Amino acid sequence: MNKKKIINDPVYGFITIPSDLIYDLISHPYFQRLRYIKQLGMTHLVYPGALHTRFHHALGAMHLMGLSLEVLRNKGHVISAEEEEAATIALLLHDIGHGPFSHSLEHTLARGIQHEDISQLIMNKLNEEFDGKLNLALLIFKNQYHRAFFNQLISGQVDLDRMDYLNRDSFFTGVSEGVISFDRIIKMFNLVNDELVIEEKGIYSVEKFLIARRLMYWQVYLHKTVIAAEQLLVKILERAKELSSKGHILFATPALQHFLQNDVNGSNFFNEEIHLNKFTQLDDQDIHAAIKVWADSNDEILARMCRMLKARRLYKVEITNEEPDHNRVKQLTENTKNKLGLNEKEISYFVFTDTIKNRAYNMSTANTNILMKTGKLVDIAKASDLSNIQSLDRTVEKHILCYTKEF
Amino acid sequence: MNKKKIINDPVYGFITIPSDLIYDLISHPYFQRLRYIKQLGMTHLVYPGALHTRFHHALGAMHLMGLSLEVLRNKGHVISAEEEEAATIALLLHDIGHGPFSHSLEHTLARGIQHEDISQLIMNKLNEEFDGKLNLALLIFKNQYHRAFFNQLISGQVDLDRMDYLNRDSFFTGVSEGVISFDRIIKMFNLVNDELVIEEKGIYSVEKFLIARRLMYWQVYLHKTVIAAEQLLVKILERAKELSSKGHILFATPALQHFLQNDVNGSNFFNEEIHLNKFTQLDDQDIHAAIKVWADSNDEILARMCRMLKARRLYKVEITNEEPDHNRVKQLTENTKNKLGLNEKEISYFVFTDTIKNRAYNMSTANTNILMKTGKLVDIAKASDLSNIQSLDRTVEKHILCYTKEF
Amino acid sequence: MNKKKIINDPVYGFITIPSDLIYDLISHPYFQRLRYIKQLGMTHLVYPGALHTRFHHALGAMHLMGLSLEVLRNKGHVISAEEEEAATIALLLHDIGHGPFSHSLEHTLARGIQHEDISQLIMNKLNEEFDGKLNLALLIFKNQYHRAFFNQLISGQVDLDRMDYLNRDSFFTGVSEGVISFDRIIKMFNLVNDELVIEEKGIYSVEKFLIARRLMYWQVYLHKTVIAAEQLLVKILERAKELSSKGHILFATPALQHFLQNDVNGSNFFNEEIHLNKFTQLDDQDIHAAIKVWADSNDEILARMCRMLKARRLYKVEITNEEPDHNRVKQLTENTKNKLGLNEKEISYFVFTDTIKNRAYNMSTANTNILMKTGKLVDIAKASDLSNIQSLDRTVEKHILCYTKEF
Amino acid sequence: MNKKKIINDPVYGFITIPSDLIYDLISHPYFQRLRYIKQLGMTHLVYPGALHTRFHHALGAMHLMGLSLEVLRNKGHVISAEEEEAATIALLLHDIGHGPFSHSLEHTLARGIQHEDISQLIMNKLNEEFDGKLNLALLIFKNQYHRAFFNQLISGQVDLDRMDYLNRDSFFTGVSEGVISFDRIIKMFNLVNDELVIEEKGIYSVEKFLIARRLMYWQVYLHKTVIAAEQLLVKILERAKELSSKGHILFATPALQHFLQNDVNGSNFFNEEIHLNKFTQLDDQDIHAAIKVWADSNDEILARMCRMLKARRLYKVEITNEEPDHNRVKQLTENTKNKLGLNEKEISYFVFTDTIKNRAYNMSTANTNILMKTGKLVDIAKASDLSNIQSLDRTVEKHILCYTKEF
Repeated sequence: MNKKKIINDPVYGFITIPSDLIYDLISHPYFQRLRYIKQLGMTHLVYPGALHTRFHHALGAMHLMGLSLEVLRNKGHVISAEEEEAATIALLLHDIGHGPFSHSLEHTLARGIQHEDISQLIMNKLNEEFDGKLNLALLIFKNQYHRAFFNQLISGQVDLDRMDYLNRDSFFTGVSEGVISFDRIIKMFNLVNDELVIEEKGIYSVEKFLIARRLMYWQVYLHKTVIAAEQLLVKILERAKELSSKGHILFATPALQHFLQNDVNGSNFFNEEIHLNKFTQLDDQDIHAAIKVWADSNDEILARMCRMLKARRLYKVEITNEEPDHNRVKQLTENTKNKLGLNEKEISYFVFTDTIKNRAYNMSTANTNILMKTGKLVDIAKASDLSNIQSLDRTVEKHILCYTKEF
Repeated sequence: MNKKKIINDPVYGFITIPSDLIYDLISHPYFQRLRYIKQLGMTHLVYPGALHTRFHHALGAMHLMGLSLEVLRNKGHVISAEEEEAATIALLLHDIGHGPFSHSLEHTLARGIQHEDISQLIMNKLNEEFDGKLNLALLIFKNQYHRAFFNQLISGQVDLDRMDYLNRDSFFTGVSEGVISFDRIIKMFNLVNDELVIEEKGIYSVEKFLIARRLMYWQVYLHKTVIAAEQLLVKILERAKELSSKGHILFATPALQHFLQNDVNGSNFFNEEIHLNKFTQLDDQDIHAAIKVWADSNDEILARMCRMLKARRLYKVEITNEEPDHNRVKQLTENTKNKLGLNEKEISYFVFTDTIKNRAYNMSTANTNILMKTGKLVDIAKASDLSNIQSLDRTVEKHILCYTKEF
Repeated sequence: MNKKKIINDPVYGFITIPSDLIYDLISHPYFQRLRYIKQLGMTHLVYPGALHTRFHHALGAMHLMGLSLEVLRNKGHVISAEEEEAATIALLLHDIGHGPFSHSLEHTLARGIQHEDISQLIMNKLNEEFDGKLNLALLIFKNQYHRAFFNQLISGQVDLDRMDYLNRDSFFTGVSEGVISFDRIIKMFNLVNDELVIEEKGIYSVEKFLIARRLMYWQVYLHKTVIAAEQLLVKILERAKELSSKGHILFATPALQHFLQNDVNGSNFFNEEIHLNKFTQLDDQDIHAAIKVWADSNDEILARMCRMLKARRLYKVEITNEEPDHNRVKQLTENTKNKLGLNEKEISYFVFTDTIKNRAYNMSTANTNILMKTGKLVDIAKASDLSNIQSLDRTVEKHILCYTKEF
Repeated sequence: MNKKKIINDPVYGFITIPSDLIYDLISHPYFQRLRYIKQLGMTHLVYPGALHTRFHHALGAMHLMGLSLEVLRNKGHVISAEEEEAATIALLLHDIGHGPFSHSLEHTLARGIQHEDISQLIMNKLNEEFDGKLNLALLIFKNQYHRAFFNQLISGQVDLDRMDYLNRDSFFTGVSEGVISFDRIIKMFNLVNDELVIEEKGIYSVEKFLIARRLMYWQVYLHKTVIAAEQLLVKILERAKELSSKGHILFATPALQHFLQNDVNGSNFFNEEIHLNKFTQLDDQDIHAAIKVWADSNDEILARMCRMLKARRLYKVEITNEEPDHNRVKQLTENTKNKLGLNEKEISYFVFTDTIKNRAYNMSTANTNILMKTGKLVDIAKASDLSNIQSLDRTVEKHILCYTKEF
């Protein structure tokens, strides 16, 4: 069979698919589904180029794994072909559990389920289908393999997942602030006792990487209008589930219908196959096609919110360090209630407060060490001149107030 | 009202929305719809970055209009603010009549309707809504304005529409062959008797532009796999319409349902408002969400084709200069008929021949003249050293043979 | 006369020369001389692409002035054509007083002269030659014009000089760390009481700008090998002047000879025309052509140092926060003295200590204010989340120890 | 010894020096000299960024060799480490025989010597110095090695030398017309019987490569102003040699002096060591430093030409397909003779005709074959749709007329 092996990527030029097994995994419907799940959800409403998908990101990260292992091999570290394929697969599939608009809807479509756990569930399924060929990939993914650096490349402070998404998000949004010298950082990778370290010469690039990530948070990931759109999306789905639970039948693809009609949660999802089956049919298009139809719903609240999203007349959003003034919120609430003729419960679809954090992307806490020319290992925070580099990586929590002026 | 005026564009850096009227047009649902219509249809199955939309392209072309008119003004040509706004609107809206997967589905969803005519219909609607503020834009669009260069910038041999799509398609596919020196060409624009000309110094850039366009045809627009996907899409919609006409009720959004159930064509489209209303609700997502559902249809032919598209198991395509060998086609047909158990009529969904042309994008024939240093105007074909530059622009017709090996 | 008005620039695409007067200034031998003075001196020994000149940088900065004033005008600020030309000239000529390898040789070829004072002297000369047409430019350059923002664009915390050199140095070295979103910052420029301010939305880009500058210092401007080469150059010129003062006649172009033979300093330079005449004949090539010849000098110290530079066998350099250990320096000194057979005074050409600062480029202390959405002006350090942004801009002094191992 | 192995290159990101021997060759004074020989001579007078050197180009070409051999190995071709190093060295050193402003001065400083022959002479010297370690590199360079593809990569129709210079010249001039998809072409390299072929899928990229080269000729290499500057340089050197031969002693570095005072030619250059010794001391700076001094020469013809070059008041140049009109030339000659008071012989420094060819860079005639999917080898001209692709590669000869208006 003629397996196409080279893919054009505007970010890196070309991406080579390194093996037949990986080709087959990429061809699998579970993975092809990622073609229709945008990496940045509603961000394209602000940055119209930001339509790139989780499919593309996963391929990009895979490409960086190839570069990284080549660098490590050139420095004399032995990495077997089997390890390389496994590490590549673990990275390629580490986000396969994402659903549509994942960061917004992770807790709306279903409840109490982490996408990481779905990723692992799907990898297990694939491992069965491929006769155990993913065993080592799973060990690496679960950080149970004895050579820690493989997992650190997938999920660490300076990992290939982040490197690719910063590059890629920066490229497609056009926000040059996020450009990082991934090639320089990778060239500075090395191993000490099978732990990933970065050679001293790479320290400025790592500082820049951390700073770029922080800037991307405030300029892109937590952009006010992006938040406005994502909050609106969440509220729409909440209303749709509420209506469905009361017996309304809304227009939806069968896959979306399943999640509207059923209470899918952490306990049944991993026990009943139907949920994963439906989940792996879902993508951004199910959501958006439904919302367009719901704009004509006879539930005025649902219809109003869907019309707002369609016409990009989003919530007004205020982001503050302190909790928003209660009187102001109360006044906005009263005012809007009157204008829209809503009751106490319904008004929460149109005026509400919440908090956001800049760590959405970041579950890991494993630090990366710098390998000094002297041979010493030093925590990056200590190796850096930038005295508060740690602060770049800390969680910042902000308050948001959302309301509408579309009456 | 706070009208956001600057948009990030990875291709040009920033795009400024030049006036309030244009801001309002961009905000209109007719235009926002273009956010969900990909410029290159199914091309992302080959070039995964090619997800950019007609929305983004229209903004990009608008940006080039601003640059072009500034150059012309700096060369002493008087252009009024009113003319500038009108020309910008004409360019911004010139593609607004495109439906989803336009090049493939233009003659499937409806029959005998050109997207240019729909663009004009929509512009007329908008002109009504905006109290005649689009009068001049419409004159320019229809090439009825006495200063010809405005229309030539929109639709000529070297126009801003093409400049933007070459740049943009090249950027998002990652095919560097399509990169053109748009800024250099624009700097060489000038007017002679209100006709657009290009100064002699720009001739190499124009040659390069024509060559880039030709290369993009064969490398991207007419890429074998892209054709395979688009043909499959056409056949799926044909089958869906056929089934609908026989009374089957297929899953579809109301907008798509309308086009499945009704014979929309050149005569009723422009007379009955319902058709345009439904048309302007349609985007790529209606099509794709339906196809995902149809993969489980109980019509085996429809279901088979939808599963092929979903899993990217497309037709095999052979592109040839000569008509494909009849015996071979016959044999493939027989063979496939037997394997799939289909009759004479049904087999045409799985084995068929057709022709393609590299002029899909190009309706115009107006030539662009080169303004020689001597002051003479010379046709570009004669001004160029590249003896066969004309051939770059000629229509090439090729034969295709499509068949499946997915049994 | 046919004055060529457009220049290709790989950094910005095209640079337009905005007026005939500016064209004539660029054509003047004082300015053309900058074609042969590299912006980054010996840096090309580390980054081989870093051959760009002060000529190119001045044109680039001029380009940014045009963009900036256009932004300010679009925000409703009135700027006359005369002011625009003057501000552009002031920026174009602000570095015209640089000699070859300026940062290294500023205090070696001559003594006690700042390049800023030479710039002003040359601007005065040009003003005479051009019949007073540079009067306003001189007022702006000397910060005596009542509209302060013109000078702030030339010499402030976030000025166009720095913006261009960060962009340009980053481009030609290939160190992507220095890339800044100059276009975004410029789009955020505004005026309050004719003072330059940056609108709140631009704050992340300004943070990034300050960080980029800091990183460029440590990665490029103060790179160990660059310092090694520049220190060697200084020592070579010191030796050449010492020999000349003792009556040795070294090979040199007449212009360089003048500075070898005479004690040019702050008091005679501005009084005797001969010095400026000779100075404006000097460029990098006079220095380097001489050094190649001096490698065969019969002064062994001079010859040795020149051979070291030619063959890129530079000093070893150690950069430390604390003063280097005295015993170590002493031991290195003794050791080298013995190996090379030098006396106490001569050894200082081969083993020595010094200090370096990361503020070489930065004489200004004027802060730039952020214009908050509320209308308040806030110091950037207070407007930023990045708690220690001030520290990015502070002077860091480091100690260096230079010695040779080339015996 | 700590041999720095990675070099920043703005064109490719990073270049790795692959072996210690290659590091030592790069460090050799013969090679370091190339740091001061610009790849494009006087082109920077038109494109101010075009200051890149033969040093940088040689490193870039070396980088492409690494990529190419990796591609070939991945396709199953066996290439030994020894062969790789030799091919890399052959490419790295293939241009080492270039002198300053090589294309202009090749026949002025010395007579009847090809730079290729000097390259070979220097490689022989280096081979002696390095104890025969360059034996295989020399075989490859001289095309005497039995595996032809190594030489074809260095000097063929689609070779790595050209690929790098097109990329690099395009990058530093800012002329985007020259950008080529080198990575795509390289990915399409393959071997048939140890001959280099390009796989069918790469044909568009090869077409684009040939077209880019042609455009670069007319836009950059044979730009009118570049020719004007190079012709002026040639005439200056001719005059300087003429004066020297009559006993005038002009200012010059010893290396340049040698070529002014002696008739160096094809017969003595290869027999007497002094000539190569002096030649390898020469670079662009010797020439330019002398010209600055000669601008004050008491030979008015020499002084006038040097002032013209210094102030960029170059010849007027007319490029035509036909020979220039004799009467016009005669009239210009007479007119200029009178204005400048020159005799019949002297006037030829200021008014003259000549011819130029677009093949300056191209000595090779070996064609590259396309490997069709069918397995057949087809000449690129026949494989291409672009009917006259051959014409892109043919020599075009044009006539030039140079004269001055600077009186």
